[in-house]
Amino acid sequence: MLIVMHRDATDAEIRKVMDHIESLGYRAHPIPGSLRTAIGITGNQGSLHRAEFEVMPGVDQAVPVTKPYKLVSREARDERTCVDVAGVPIGAGTFTVIAGPCAVESRKQLFEIAEQVKKAGAHLLRGGAFKPRTSPYSFQGLGEEGLKLLAEARKEFDLPVVTEAMDSEGVKLVEEYADVIQIGARNMQNYSLLKAAGRARKPVFLKRGMSATLDELLMAAEYIYSEGNYQVFLCERGVRTFSMHTRNTLDLSVVPAVQEHSHLPILVDTSHGTGRRDKVPALSLAALAVGADGLMVEVHHEPEKALSDGPQALTPEMFRKLMADLKSMAPLLGRTIES
Amino acid sequence: MLIVMHRDATDAEIRKVMDHIESLGYRAHPIPGSLRTAIGITGNQGSLHRAEFEVMPGVDQAVPVTKPYKLVSREARDERTCVDVAGVPIGAGTFTVIAGPCAVESRKQLFEIAEQVKKAGAHLLRGGAFKPRTSPYSFQGLGEEGLKLLAEARKEFDLPVVTEAMDSEGVKLVEEYADVIQIGARNMQNYSLLKAAGRARKPVFLKRGMSATLDELLMAAEYIYSEGNYQVFLCERGVRTFSMHTRNTLDLSVVPAVQEHSHLPILVDTSHGTGRRDKVPALSLAALAVGADGLMVEVHHEPEKALSDGPQALTPEMFRKLMADLKSMAPLLGRTIES
Amino acid sequence: MLIVMHRDATDAEIRKVMDHIESLGYRAHPIPGSLRTAIGITGNQGSLHRAEFEVMPGVDQAVPVTKPYKLVSREARDERTCVDVAGVPIGAGTFTVIAGPCAVESRKQLFEIAEQVKKAGAHLLRGGAFKPRTSPYSFQGLGEEGLKLLAEARKEFDLPVVTEAMDSEGVKLVEEYADVIQIGARNMQNYSLLKAAGRARKPVFLKRGMSATLDELLMAAEYIYSEGNYQVFLCERGVRTFSMHTRNTLDLSVVPAVQEHSHLPILVDTSHGTGRRDKVPALSLAALAVGADGLMVEVHHEPEKALSDGPQALTPEMFRKLMADLKSMAPLLGRTIES
Amino acid sequence: MLIVMHRDATDAEIRKVMDHIESLGYRAHPIPGSLRTAIGITGNQGSLHRAEFEVMPGVDQAVPVTKPYKLVSREARDERTCVDVAGVPIGAGTFTVIAGPCAVESRKQLFEIAEQVKKAGAHLLRGGAFKPRTSPYSFQGLGEEGLKLLAEARKEFDLPVVTEAMDSEGVKLVEEYADVIQIGARNMQNYSLLKAAGRARKPVFLKRGMSATLDELLMAAEYIYSEGNYQVFLCERGVRTFSMHTRNTLDLSVVPAVQEHSHLPILVDTSHGTGRRDKVPALSLAALAVGADGLMVEVHHEPEKALSDGPQALTPEMFRKLMADLKSMAPLLGRTIES
Repeated sequence: MLIVMHRDATDAEIRKVMDHIESLGYRAHPIPGSLRTAIGITGNQGSLHRAEFEVMPGVDQAVPVTKPYKLVSREARDERTCVDVAGVPIGAGTFTVIAGPCAVESRKQLFEIAEQVKKAGAHLLRGGAFKPRTSPYSFQGLGEEGLKLLAEARKEFDLPVVTEAMDSEGVKLVEEYADVIQIGARNMQNYSLLKAAGRARKPVFLKRGMSATLDELLMAAEYIYSEGNYQVFLCERGVRTFSMHTRNTLDLSVVPAVQEHSHLPILVDTSHGTGRRDKVPALSLAALAVGADGLMVEVHHEPEKALSDGPQALTPEMFRKLMADLKSMAPLLGRTIES
Repeated sequence: MLIVMHRDATDAEIRKVMDHIESLGYRAHPIPGSLRTAIGITGNQGSLHRAEFEVMPGVDQAVPVTKPYKLVSREARDERTCVDVAGVPIGAGTFTVIAGPCAVESRKQLFEIAEQVKKAGAHLLRGGAFKPRTSPYSFQGLGEEGLKLLAEARKEFDLPVVTEAMDSEGVKLVEEYADVIQIGARNMQNYSLLKAAGRARKPVFLKRGMSATLDELLMAAEYIYSEGNYQVFLCERGVRTFSMHTRNTLDLSVVPAVQEHSHLPILVDTSHGTGRRDKVPALSLAALAVGADGLMVEVHHEPEKALSDGPQALTPEMFRKLMADLKSMAPLLGRTIES
Repeated sequence: MLIVMHRDATDAEIRKVMDHIESLGYRAHPIPGSLRTAIGITGNQGSLHRAEFEVMPGVDQAVPVTKPYKLVSREARDERTCVDVAGVPIGAGTFTVIAGPCAVESRKQLFEIAEQVKKAGAHLLRGGAFKPRTSPYSFQGLGEEGLKLLAEARKEFDLPVVTEAMDSEGVKLVEEYADVIQIGARNMQNYSLLKAAGRARKPVFLKRGMSATLDELLMAAEYIYSEGNYQVFLCERGVRTFSMHTRNTLDLSVVPAVQEHSHLPILVDTSHGTGRRDKVPALSLAALAVGADGLMVEVHHEPEKALSDGPQALTPEMFRKLMADLKSMAPLLGRTIES
Repeated sequence: MLIVMHRDATDAEIRKVMDHIESLGYRAHPIPGSLRTAIGITGNQGSLHRAEFEVMPGVDQAVPVTKPYKLVSREARDERTCVDVAGVPIGAGTFTVIAGPCAVESRKQLFEIAEQVKKAGAHLLRGGAFKPRTSPYSFQGLGEEGLKLLAEARKEFDLPVVTEAMDSEGVKLVEEYADVIQIGARNMQNYSLLKAAGRARKPVFLKRGMSATLDELLMAAEYIYSEGNYQVFLCERGVRTFSMHTRNTLDLSVVPAVQEHSHLPILVDTSHGTGRRDKVPALSLAALAVGADGLMVEVHHEPEKALSDGPQALTPEMFRKLMADLKSMAPLLGRTIES
């Protein structure tokens, strides 16, 4: 933290700020300038709150200089983390594709789609059993029944399973039946849920909140790490802006930004990121090009009948075409898509 | 929903859209225009998904026309709801002030502040026992111990208590010890939590999420209503924008907008809405002037030592001055501040 | 500017940053910490570009500490500026009301409205002669003819006139016919226009851009000041966010923020800020309560026939009621509304 | 436009809305529903203002259904436009690269950079002679002197020149010396400038404003078209959001969205879109992958000495590497990069 004093701050005011810093157990480093004085703070463990200083007389501005996250930062670990999902690597130069329906609707629907995405080359199967819906009157998912169907599909098609948990009991169930515990965008700062996921023994797939900054995303991951679960990978799925031509505004620049500040893998969900299937292929190629570690896309064999988010689901045919395009582009970018 | 066809849509495409509408059990009303055809849909109970139609051949745009919320809408109830919190009315022409520390830190701290805010005229006492903190390394609240202190303070100072719950177990505890269950901004779309609050027997104070639209806020309230709890009041606490001169951008226009579309009371939290105590009084007067049903403000007798959010807490002296200003302004606006 | 080095930056890297600072003619102040070193910079006149340092090896972050504006800052002038518009003071404890139609449409329309707003107590008359319209096919204003009508109305009703200029020639015409040169939100960073306004001899009313930060707004004012025109007052008119219940999101907290950092007066345009006449009165009272120096509102005697923005125009009757409410509230807030 | 009536609207209110529609010369099409009535409007030429209807008694909502742009829309022209810049095609399956310094600083600087970008395969040379700077105290460009240097460089290196104009006089000068008139993001809604560019005889490169929607971008292009200049190509350069890890948030999804709704080519400026050179290559590959018609990037041989925006400029070496990567990827995407 750096405290910048007003141009006309008095010596007494400067002294008072320094005393306050020292009373907190830190060290204060005054830097007199030609126009004004600044005071550096060192010795603090956690991050300080800027407003604590900004309300003191004579203070113009307090400027934070330390990142709040630790375990997930590049400083904590220099090489990039590779998460192992039942034998499927995420990170480490691969490009991993998670595909499947938005929601598990029935055995028939799930198996039909699982078979298709497996054939096309998907590495993991997605499918929601607990669905966070804006309306209480919308389909809320099949619950544990859906998890059982996912577990069956995994066995049948040899596809590890990713599915969302919405509360502590959900975490336990997902941990039991599936391979990856997904935390949705709306729950990115649901700290009870993050802690529960941090105590689970399965990898966690953490989606960025609709208006979460890079720091907040990494702090949410830090919550999971701080409970002892080090198998975490992230997901960009679009942020909320004034821009209305897509459902959300996909922020692909967060991919290299995460890679600069953290060792965690990051995937891109182009289905939620665009909200429209006709935009998914272009943005998916862009996700590979920008350096993402993988992709999550929704696929449905009868999207017009889907119980949720049908309009953003690819048809199996579109998905096959996309996989082929990704596979032809990946080697040029030094990336491997396992098959 | 209105489906607008492309200028050059064929009759077959129009027919197909109408068939699809009818296959869903709704009625389709074609409106031929000079340039293009539009198709109105009626008979649907819930809201339709626009993209479901936008991906059909020949369709240019689908336009939703029905509000997704029902029980909390003005159409469901014409007069404004008044929530009764242990005898304190919220809504119905009063201006209710909730004040207290951000977090309960100790008996001494809580009682000192409670005494001061009671004297100054606050109607309800706030204080966090479970704190949603961005960092896992920050103070997380005293938990049940904090709830017990709040219950004691209520008795001592005759101040009903508002405090946040972060998960289902938290709801049960808060219901037991306090008078109002607060749902924080980060959990506005934590549907497990909303449902748990909907099954509780105490009033719920629901804060708008950082990037929640008006519709999403009302749909979150609808979740609580749909479980049978009709004692809900809302809170604007600032939204996230590019604007950095305050911690959040307080959207006061949502107050008359909520009052237009819903019968629920709405308060304003000017502490989180600004993040800086020197801005709290001006915005609090503006909240009264714009027609809010009340105010939530943080007060701390030693803000520089507060374990969380000290910079946005008013001193007891500032709070007394604010209450006096509110009381002198309220009658001009046809409002009552009980004392 | 403060340069924060990486935790593992080498001595050579630190030395190189210091050499670079000194090669630019500034002074470098190293602050060694327990975890990392920071380097303060002093002696620079203008603001430095943070990325210039952030791309150097070993640098983690560069943090700007000097405000970029000078002449319009509180540091340059301790007392608040009062702008004199043909005898009407703006700032200095008054609350000034600018009212009139969005666009001048005809002599009859303008005079009818001017008479009504004068009677109700408006201090200045607004009316657009040059209209910035999103569509080239919309009514673009009467041009110089409109300015002549405004000049006539000023004489007839003794109301100084505020009207927008969109380019250098427009500035000359507005300067000739009117009392205040308005710069619209879309042109807040049209630097050619700002410079032309800075060379004019009439006061300038500068509206905040749709996504302008506080610093950018003040820098735009600085452009006008830097050309020698010191008669500038500002306007908040809503910013663009994801929030769709009003046309723009009115950011009332920018009022006390401008007053903290600058000596310039700031008004609020609640017509553009809300886009709907039924929301204008509530937000206008809030603008007074938050401490604004005045208000701009659109008034039309036949809003349903207005050639532009009719839906946000108050009727003369609504305006009279609003003026009465403002006048009864102002004294409580220590403000004067001249009549 | 579709007018949705309140559930309890009276027949008289419905009749009044229909009369109003017909008094405007349009046709009204009532659609009675089980819960409420909606009224379609046809026959209008331009777009209607929704609030004009929303303020009428009994009206719940007015929903626009016609796009406001005409000449630049897909409906006006089915095949994609290819702009010819002195023999260099933009659109039509090519991927065009515009490179050069942010600002022209000197003959030496410009020629050094022009030589390098030509060698690496750039198709057009950029360089600012008139610079829109946030601060009046920053370098404002060399003006006409800069344009002369650009004209010289064009001749020497056979590179058509793109440079920005900030006002009508600037348009005349740029038209005289350069090959493309650039309109910057801050001036996207400077209608005087758009009209001046529309009367010029050179192609116009129009950048999206910081908070412009897709519709507003296309309407700005429509202004240029409406004056008779049909040589227009667009540029995505990042929009303003809460997200702070890059200078702006690059919205790559606008590329397929423009291509869906308009026949105009669209490029991506990854220098302004990210603000940091280390992020430029990844986002540039993503721009190609998402389907953009080209790229604008800033290149400087001594970025640390650049008079503006040095931190976002690629070094010539980085640019060569980027061109090579783009060229190897383009064929896979069915695109041509001319050399």
